[in-house]
Amino acid sequence: KTKMACCGSCLCCQCCCREGETRTPEELTILGEIQGDEDEILPRKDYESLDYDRCINEPYVEILEGMDNQKAKKYEAVRWIMMFAIGVTVGLVGLFVDFFVRLFSKIKFTVVGDSVERCTDKGCLPLSLLELLGFNMTFVFIASVLVLIEPVAAGSGIPEIKSYLNGVKMPGIVRLRTFLCKAAGVLFSVAGGLFVGKEGPMIHSGAIVGAGLPQFQSITFKKIKLDFPYFRSDRDKRDFVSAGAAAGVAAAFGAPIGGTLFSLEEGSSFWNQALTWKVLFCSMSATFTLNFFRSGINFNKWGSFQLPGLLNFGEFKCSDGDKNCHLWTAVDLAFFVLMGVVGGLLGALFNCLNKYLSKYRIKHIHPKAKFIRVLESLLVSMVTTVVIFAASILLGECRDFSSPAAHNTTLSGGEDINSTIRQFFCTNETYNDMATLFFNPQEAAIHQLFHQEGTFSPVTLSVFFLLYFLLACWTYGVSVPSGLFVPSLLCGAAFGRLVANILKVKLGLDIYSGTFALIGAAAFLGGVVRMTISLTVILIESTNEITYGLPIMITLMVAKWTGDFFNKGIYDIHIQLRGVPLLEWETEVEMDRLTASDIMEPNLTYVYPHTRVQSLVSILRTTVYNAFPVVTENRQNERDFMKGNILVSNNIRFKKSSVVSRAGEQRRRCQSMKSYPSSELRNVCDEHNVAVEPAEEGEDLLQQMLERRHAPYPNLNPDQSPSEEWTMEERFRPLTFHGLILRSQLVNLLIRGVCYAENQSSATQPRLSYAEMTEDYPRYPDIHDLDLALLNPRMIVDVAPYMNPCPYTVSPNTHISQVFNLFRTMGLRHLPVVNAVGEIVGIITRHNLTHEVLVAKLHQHSITI
Amino acid sequence: KTKMACCGSCLCCQCCCREGETRTPEELTILGEIQGDEDEILPRKDYESLDYDRCINEPYVEILEGMDNQKAKKYEAVRWIMMFAIGVTVGLVGLFVDFFVRLFSKIKFTVVGDSVERCTDKGCLPLSLLELLGFNMTFVFIASVLVLIEPVAAGSGIPEIKSYLNGVKMPGIVRLRTFLCKAAGVLFSVAGGLFVGKEGPMIHSGAIVGAGLPQFQSITFKKIKLDFPYFRSDRDKRDFVSAGAAAGVAAAFGAPIGGTLFSLEEGSSFWNQALTWKVLFCSMSATFTLNFFRSGINFNKWGSFQLPGLLNFGEFKCSDGDKNCHLWTAVDLAFFVLMGVVGGLLGALFNCLNKYLSKYRIKHIHPKAKFIRVLESLLVSMVTTVVIFAASILLGECRDFSSPAAHNTTLSGGEDINSTIRQFFCTNETYNDMATLFFNPQEAAIHQLFHQEGTFSPVTLSVFFLLYFLLACWTYGVSVPSGLFVPSLLCGAAFGRLVANILKVKLGLDIYSGTFALIGAAAFLGGVVRMTISLTVILIESTNEITYGLPIMITLMVAKWTGDFFNKGIYDIHIQLRGVPLLEWETEVEMDRLTASDIMEPNLTYVYPHTRVQSLVSILRTTVYNAFPVVTENRQNERDFMKGNILVSNNIRFKKSSVVSRAGEQRRRCQSMKSYPSSELRNVCDEHNVAVEPAEEGEDLLQQMLERRHAPYPNLNPDQSPSEEWTMEERFRPLTFHGLILRSQLVNLLIRGVCYAENQSSATQPRLSYAEMTEDYPRYPDIHDLDLALLNPRMIVDVAPYMNPCPYTVSPNTHISQVFNLFRTMGLRHLPVVNAVGEIVGIITRHNLTHEVLVAKLHQHSITI
Repeated sequence: KTKMACCGSCLCCQCCCREGETRTPEELTILGEIQGDEDEILPRKDYESLDYDRCINEPYVEILEGMDNQKAKKYEAVRWIMMFAIGVTVGLVGLFVDFFVRLFSKIKFTVVGDSVERCTDKGCLPLSLLELLGFNMTFVFIASVLVLIEPVAAGSGIPEIKSYLNGVKMPGIVRLRTFLCKAAGVLFSVAGGLFVGKEGPMIHSGAIVGAGLPQFQSITFKKIKLDFPYFRSDRDKRDFVSAGAAAGVAAAFGAPIGGTLFSLEEGSSFWNQALTWKVLFCSMSATFTLNFFRSGINFNKWGSFQLPGLLNFGEFKCSDGDKNCHLWTAVDLAFFVLMGVVGGLLGALFNCLNKYLSKYRIKHIHPKAKFIRVLESLLVSMVTTVVIFAASILLGECRDFSSPAAHNTTLSGGEDINSTIRQFFCTNETYNDMATLFFNPQEAAIHQLFHQEGTFSPVTLSVFFLLYFLLACWTYGVSVPSGLFVPSLLCGAAFGRLVANILKVKLGLDIYSGTFALIGAAAFLGGVVRMTISLTVILIESTNEITYGLPIMITLMVAKWTGDFFNKGIYDIHIQLRGVPLLEWETEVEMDRLTASDIMEPNLTYVYPHTRVQSLVSILRTTVYNAFPVVTENRQNERDFMKGNILVSNNIRFKKSSVVSRAGEQRRRCQSMKSYPSSELRNVCDEHNVAVEPAEEGEDLLQQMLERRHAPYPNLNPDQSPSEEWTMEERFRPLTFHGLILRSQLVNLLIRGVCYAENQSSATQPRLSYAEMTEDYPRYPDIHDLDLALLNPRMIVDVAPYMNPCPYTVSPNTHISQVFNLFRTMGLRHLPVVNAVGEIVGIITRHNLTHEVLVAKLHQHSITI
Repeated sequence: KTKMACCGSCLCCQCCCREGETRTPEELTILGEIQGDEDEILPRKDYESLDYDRCINEPYVEILEGMDNQKAKKYEAVRWIMMFAIGVTVGLVGLFVDFFVRLFSKIKFTVVGDSVERCTDKGCLPLSLLELLGFNMTFVFIASVLVLIEPVAAGSGIPEIKSYLNGVKMPGIVRLRTFLCKAAGVLFSVAGGLFVGKEGPMIHSGAIVGAGLPQFQSITFKKIKLDFPYFRSDRDKRDFVSAGAAAGVAAAFGAPIGGTLFSLEEGSSFWNQALTWKVLFCSMSATFTLNFFRSGINFNKWGSFQLPGLLNFGEFKCSDGDKNCHLWTAVDLAFFVLMGVVGGLLGALFNCLNKYLSKYRIKHIHPKAKFIRVLESLLVSMVTTVVIFAASILLGECRDFSSPAAHNTTLSGGEDINSTIRQFFCTNETYNDMATLFFNPQEAAIHQLFHQEGTFSPVTLSVFFLLYFLLACWTYGVSVPSGLFVPSLLCGAAFGRLVANILKVKLGLDIYSGTFALIGAAAFLGGVVRMTISLTVILIESTNEITYGLPIMITLMVAKWTGDFFNKGIYDIHIQLRGVPLLEWETEVEMDRLTASDIMEPNLTYVYPHTRVQSLVSILRTTVYNAFPVVTENRQNERDFMKGNILVSNNIRFKKSSVVSRAGEQRRRCQSMKSYPSSELRNVCDEHNVAVEPAEEGEDLLQQMLERRHAPYPNLNPDQSPSEEWTMEERFRPLTFHGLILRSQLVNLLIRGVCYAENQSSATQPRLSYAEMTEDYPRYPDIHDLDLALLNPRMIVDVAPYMNPCPYTVSPNTHISQVFNLFRTMGLRHLPVVNAVGEIVGIITRHNLTHEVLVAKLHQHSITI
């Protein structure tokens, strides 16, 4: 009860990292105010954001011009093939992990089981324990060492994938090395008898396959590099990661629809039919690849596809003779709701304990030498093994076999449920119920709880639940790849079975125990992970029984609502602990009192369309911003400047030229049947700009047409280049917004020497192709790696062709719900705030929209008003 | 083969209606050019669009200010309750329809069946035919008369719902009268033995329930009007319609997940987790309400929930003894792909024939007197009845009963599959296979094809398929409520069974016939309707067998691709024929050569922030636009005007005041801890504006703060009011964009007398609350209903508080894919195109983004360049 209360304050999040910016002291004050009730501020990290928006600049337009429908179709076909390849690969990975886990577990349990049977008479049980310890600790040691090689491979990977799909790039999570460590590591951690599942790591592995396969290159192995430059953008990569993650779910649970929904729920904020269809195809490929090979290898039925996913719940059905048997009735729903509440409470407790444990780890274990983590893994493994062994031997009850004829449930694939029963110390007609649960792979234990009729004593179930709960809670977060689904299911199933035992035996109700075990599993899992739609569908698909839809959904909903009353889901907690600026689904209604101007960052560093190399280098070296608005000065007295200063007038002319007016448009339309070859136009344009003063607007048809293109212009006055030494007044003078250019693009331009000399026209600047712009994706070179000796600081760079000329913008008065909706739905990275006359007034990034910042701003706002 | 070829040209769409605008002659020319290959241009209709975007104007802000989290939670709770209510209601509607269809069918088949058995000996078969004709034609007559009352109730309703969810409001489709006619009509048309299904109308009925229930009022029955003014916006209504449609699918197919996906696939262009969760809850409620009552009423097992949806496919499983039996193997997949191709071809043929038939109906039947439609229905009914009767009696083969013990498949609910076998004219040990298919409800025939072992001769199946294909094609489009799912499934199942017969009997392959029948059904249905993800899930859920996922998906994909080669899906064809400007999922890659300025409508009518009543009335009466940009003049020489003309300067001051500058923001921030009561601010603001010349920007903190609000201003010079008589130059002079106001809002302001006299401040204008603004939703009064005598034409209306001050905008250079994405994803109705200095240059509506317009513009573009 007291532990429950302590979770009440776990709500406020502490993720404080932002788009590579440092906080102003003022903001820290604001944040400090609302974080007063939180015990500490965790270390912040700088993660980069992903950009799902397309940047249609000139190199991309060139690609577009060359892209006819024929080419587009080929491109699309490659996508489909990649989806299939990802699905098959993920299926094979699942097969590999499953095969070895089964092999190792079988060897382990056979050897140790035989030893126990032998020692029951001889009294050499400590020897058996040593054997088991030997197996388990060796496996866990291997898993732990693999995680030492690539620390990101620890844990379930779902927080990482969730962050990635939300739009935050954590370093290293989609690399080949991570994949290898994760896939091999989870194999050993599961085989090592830890209370961990392989589902989370499967999903992570799937996501890495999705990210890596279409890139045709690898950072870890430099030699693996084919010359296929497609899909090198955040947008494409994120799509493939969605598909890979979905395939991972599909392979792990045999739930292709659930996998697709998982991807959508976590990742895509919008419903893209084409993508969804591909993701479903990829999931199906994974499921059926796995089934094909498992049917073939395990049962020698090649081509039958009879096996469901790695985790399946067997068939829930009444025995044929019993006409009064129901899987569930309307009355049971009331119990399910209560179980949902309890599951939510237990889940909240689990999360709370795990959170404190994780914080302790972050503070006291992570800073120390790495081998400490290995020691912790080994300690967990040792305790787990001893508990398993001791509980099986000391706490089990000997129960009668239920009549096998009456209830002959078979697992898919023909394994009889009674084959996994353990007889430790019990006479021939009885068996040890605790050992049956502890001394088996977790999937077998779940099957026992779901399908074995009335054979577990309430005491055994309670002890099992308690031990499992505590050990699983301790284990999640240890430095091994470790999923949470199966442990949660098993723990919850024990709880559900306990409820069923009480209702059936004590109260004499006519219920189906298996259903209660399933609902208990759903309730506890729901309470821990708090996923909703996709989890419902995954569980329905795993049970392969549509009639469980309503009870599962109601249970999950109640569990989620109950749990949300205390704290967040376990994955969200771990995302917070990692300091990821995750964006929620939508903002609270209250937040709509704020507008874009309240939350934007007004302190900007920007570049002109034509900037000197020295200025660019200085900007890039002295700031950490990832995007720079491209602006021109917007003076009230333009005309005066026009005459006095030719260079500034060029600046202004750029502005005018990017202005499309309706009158011009209309005239252009009226005479649009005339055709001009485009190359000619470009030349005329250049001459025009050099020779002629800006004509009266709307005089010349040709001029009007040209206004639609970003024509090249002479350089700016170098003294006007942005500098860090400006006063506040200078920094905030009115600037017309023309586009956004990314740090990576600027560095790329500098490295490739895209610039022109002062006395030349900007048309002489070398042009980069799309392939050249994206060649280094996703790891663009840093400005500090740039050899300044190779650059002439007096040269001028025309950034206009490479900037994003029309990003989505919002007006300063736009309310937060609309801003958030646009940002989240379009997967943006930067959202410029532009006022009614086209001046940029600020920029909104992911950081400005996180819940904590919004709460702080609202607080500030309500003080002001 | 020739029929197939003729479909090649069915691609180009002819829907030409637009946002209540008339086409310019120029555009007609463009459209005419590309429509040269199409035989005719169908009549255009004016449908209004829905607006999914929130309009956060001052009345809405007032609601927001009063909305704390407590209130927001209550509001949310009401939504959940409404979702539950919708689900239960839809379930009950399904129950009602199902109950009476069963009742009427049972009476009919019992009476006529007895008569046939009797007449087999006596030779009075014509009498039996007359009895059947009497039943069928009476039922169809009733259905047809119901459709006469509300013509929108004809057909399946899916095209209408698809259009609605896409954002087009067709008149009358979500009205109570339509619901009553549809629900009752489909009951009679199905009972009347027409080859129609009840699934489409169920979905439409569900959607109407969703639209109507949360409104708490009805147009048809004026008395039904509770005082509950929530959910009166397009946004809320569309959400509820999504949920209702999903519930309809869920009830009809027992597929809650499929229903949810259907809604998402057709409707929401973005993934809104909260909404999805509600929709799933609504679907589940509908499914389980239906199951609860059906279990209770049909089988007296109250509370057991054992029955799946109205349409279910029974259980596919191998007989227990047969260990070598597989539902499907890898080898079968090849056949499934071929069947998918054939299904796609057949579906394309079906659609092509139906399209020509529908066009014929539109041209030759719809213009005539309404009773002609009733006659057509009766004719179809008569022909169908005669065909059923004649085929059953003349063309059936007598086949042996298969040994019932070996294959004892039972339908859910305990109906034996052999109970629906018909023995017409056959001896005791045999039965008539054609009669078994024709002389049963369609669901029973589907079950026969799926589960009855080897009992249909290839000839029977071929004849059945042919007759069914042609009659179903003729029937769809007749003036009765008529779904397409069940006829397509039955037709396809016959085709699949035929393939299975050939493979099994002729080639001796070891296959499971039921699987082939199912795949055939999927292939044909996929070929006809071309839905993808949701259909896969619906079929998987209906079969309740996850292992069919891959074959069903592959078949549907192949069928869709094959069919798409020739024409569109049947629903899309009917949407085209209705002239609905549907937006696709995304644009083709080619279209990205166009930018927003290429496709926008530059010819705008607009209003000033302060406009005279006479001008507004004149604008509203002389134009048919649904939205008007609110603009101020943007002259280069502002300063000259400032001194000379105080009224225009006010106009310009409005512009300046709506400009938030970064400097101002920053200063405001630095001192933001000072607090001012908002009412005081407003007064200060008014005085400020009247008394003081516009100060140097950024001088005064208070002034800076005020810049963020739309303060009231004196009126414009009346002579400057927009008029229709302007020259081109005047019409296209530069105008700064400030917001959008809808026609309905303007009319509402005029009717409620929101205006102020010339010599007063605009602060004296009455203020409308949010409830008053939305009271008349969704049928706002027309300007022509306005009594002009009540208005003083010299009064001035300040529209600023009621306009949408910050709609999403795009720059003229934005490429089409981005424009389309924004428009479609946000569910916009109007998208202003604003240039780099904040001048409005055009507006984009749904019409500008339809495929035909884009193709025309691209054509024009490629000529120009």
